[in-house]
Amino acid sequence: MDADILSIGTEVSTGAIVNTNTAWLARALMAVGVVPRRHVTVGDRLDAIRDEIVRAAREVEVVIVTGGLGPTLDDMTRDSLAAALGQPLERDEASVEHIRNLFRKMNRPMGESNLQQALVPRGARAMENPWGTAPGLRAELHRAVVFCLPGVPREMERMFEKHVAPELRQGCEAAVSVRVLRTFGQGESFIGQQIAAFMAPARNPSVGTQASEGLISVRIIGLAASEQEAQRLVDADAKAMRALLGEIVFGEDDDTLPGVVGRMLAERGQTLAVAESCTGGMIAASITDVSGSSRYFLRGYVTYSNESKSELLGVPPELIAAHGAVSEPVAEAMAVGCLQRAGVDYALSVTGVAGPTGGTADKPVGLVFIGLADRRECRVHRLQLSDHLSRWAIRDRTCKTALNLLRLRLMA
Amino acid sequence: MDADILSIGTEVSTGAIVNTNTAWLARALMAVGVVPRRHVTVGDRLDAIRDEIVRAAREVEVVIVTGGLGPTLDDMTRDSLAAALGQPLERDEASVEHIRNLFRKMNRPMGESNLQQALVPRGARAMENPWGTAPGLRAELHRAVVFCLPGVPREMERMFEKHVAPELRQGCEAAVSVRVLRTFGQGESFIGQQIAAFMAPARNPSVGTQASEGLISVRIIGLAASEQEAQRLVDADAKAMRALLGEIVFGEDDDTLPGVVGRMLAERGQTLAVAESCTGGMIAASITDVSGSSRYFLRGYVTYSNESKSELLGVPPELIAAHGAVSEPVAEAMAVGCLQRAGVDYALSVTGVAGPTGGTADKPVGLVFIGLADRRECRVHRLQLSDHLSRWAIRDRTCKTALNLLRLRLMA
Repeated sequence: MDADILSIGTEVSTGAIVNTNTAWLARALMAVGVVPRRHVTVGDRLDAIRDEIVRAAREVEVVIVTGGLGPTLDDMTRDSLAAALGQPLERDEASVEHIRNLFRKMNRPMGESNLQQALVPRGARAMENPWGTAPGLRAELHRAVVFCLPGVPREMERMFEKHVAPELRQGCEAAVSVRVLRTFGQGESFIGQQIAAFMAPARNPSVGTQASEGLISVRIIGLAASEQEAQRLVDADAKAMRALLGEIVFGEDDDTLPGVVGRMLAERGQTLAVAESCTGGMIAASITDVSGSSRYFLRGYVTYSNESKSELLGVPPELIAAHGAVSEPVAEAMAVGCLQRAGVDYALSVTGVAGPTGGTADKPVGLVFIGLADRRECRVHRLQLSDHLSRWAIRDRTCKTALNLLRLRLMA
Repeated sequence: MDADILSIGTEVSTGAIVNTNTAWLARALMAVGVVPRRHVTVGDRLDAIRDEIVRAAREVEVVIVTGGLGPTLDDMTRDSLAAALGQPLERDEASVEHIRNLFRKMNRPMGESNLQQALVPRGARAMENPWGTAPGLRAELHRAVVFCLPGVPREMERMFEKHVAPELRQGCEAAVSVRVLRTFGQGESFIGQQIAAFMAPARNPSVGTQASEGLISVRIIGLAASEQEAQRLVDADAKAMRALLGEIVFGEDDDTLPGVVGRMLAERGQTLAVAESCTGGMIAASITDVSGSSRYFLRGYVTYSNESKSELLGVPPELIAAHGAVSEPVAEAMAVGCLQRAGVDYALSVTGVAGPTGGTADKPVGLVFIGLADRRECRVHRLQLSDHLSRWAIRDRTCKTALNLLRLRLMA
């Protein structure tokens, strides 16, 4: 079964608020075996809402409408559904009772406008909303079942779970399983070439790639008659693509680089400290965003000035004078000093030119040295990032590269 | 003029990522006098994308398509636009040159698949993308001008400003001026009450509030026959609301807390260092995200373990044993130790329970102590954030509160 999601509201169509309902609904639909096909957002206009309901109901089996069920004049979903059905609105007495009770409970006077919320198109059905005043609506039109839910996320989500999910689960023959491979270290086009055979159109599972802030994700969506079978399809694809892509795959689904590195350190009972110049605390911040990171992360030095590199890490001022703060020897001295002073198993260091100013012909914006020391040795990795990236992006890619170097060392 | 916004990508239609592009685009369109009418999201399917482009182009004057311009097989926007136009794809030599140069600069081999990105439907035009490999596309179809932009938000936003906004601005008779007041320290409903008179429906300028990650923004949109007149309207509103809201307004438009604090420090020639426990480097990272921050930010200590608090900042181990690491005396000792050891004019310290685990009845999740020391005194601010917030949000609000405390001190 396919579904369309319609979001109603001028606050959404004008961008005053970011629409988070559709992403939630899309995932919730997939979880009950329904494939979200299209999302449409329109403002509070009766004709526009009616047209979208009719169009969707001709093309898919499930239509979810959110928003526009409130008590004010600009709430148009009820009237629009009635217009789409070609039926008049009638007062639903159970809903009237529910709204009256709610206001009595809150000790607030009920305005006549609230009774507008008890109107239901003839032939449709009100769906009880214990979490707010607006009942939901359920109607059948053309090929589709149409569900209208409130726009407030908490109410919408609960109404979906209570009224919509059970009905859809019953009606579905197909099950959906989703897996995401998380990669770092290669571009999207390279990965696309490696797994081109899996990305053929109309293949099941369907496979797609997505780039976001230096990470490439490979999304696998499997459809089958049973959940078990869908999962089996997705498992097989994930395994085959992992074999093709090798060590650039650092995890699956909700895995992050700091989370994966942290898990490896915790499992071995090993510890980490960092010494950062151009990233200015971002590596430490990303590591400590993981709950429980205090087990393996002991400290970080943000040595932004040259004096702090010498004072806190023991980098000889002569070394900085001879090679500059952004140099291989300084990155090495930072990592080794950090390892020794913090008494840890691994130390990462970073020094670079984050830009947009401060670059020279010799040391352009985007040049970064990353040191990684353990108790046996220290290696320095030279990174030249594109100077087209923003300051933030240069720092972010540097962070991820540093964590990935540590991951590869831990895997070796 | 009306506009439709089409978002392309199975990662969006399946809810794997929340679509933030459409809200940004809707606001950007309004700022150049174009009214966003509908947003549509579809997955990576040629026929679906083609149909949506054709439908939109028949109904509105401006169609913005984002996403689906990447180098892999599931990137369908180029082919879909060609299908909508009924034209073949042809290679654009300027785009080929641009892509080759980019890969040369990155020292990465270019795959043949990247040249797919240089294909342009006959009669359409490539729009240069200095921030990525995928050029944008511009075509005319039925009533509309169709602009195709990359899906990566940073590239999309820059491409819109460079190529789309100037053309749309020319086509509009009315002038729009937009101003945003940035505030920190009060909730949205409090601010809404203070400026209720400005938020009356159908008023010009229109004024709206928006909450995002602890910051409340007040958006003022003025419409007039000339740009000068629109600006005058907006200036007057901004001045009046600043008087009402007082010191919670920290800046306008693109101002950020670290940027504003940095500007104040740079103007006075004063310096700053930070000592962080639960924020784990986030304060240092946000300060150093500002270009030129090395003028005033000298160093940061990420003292995650108790030992590091004592070793690096001189916090007596007895003090930690007596009061616990999350306590007022420890926050004070951290700030004073940081100030003295770094030799700076101001030091911020943070210690708290970021959660989700680690809270006790005495020291619940969300309890944070922030120390602020200068050469005369040290004050500690106690903060109790809601334990409904995520770990990241608790750390983020702590960061912002710390920077805001420093801002207020610098204003005093």
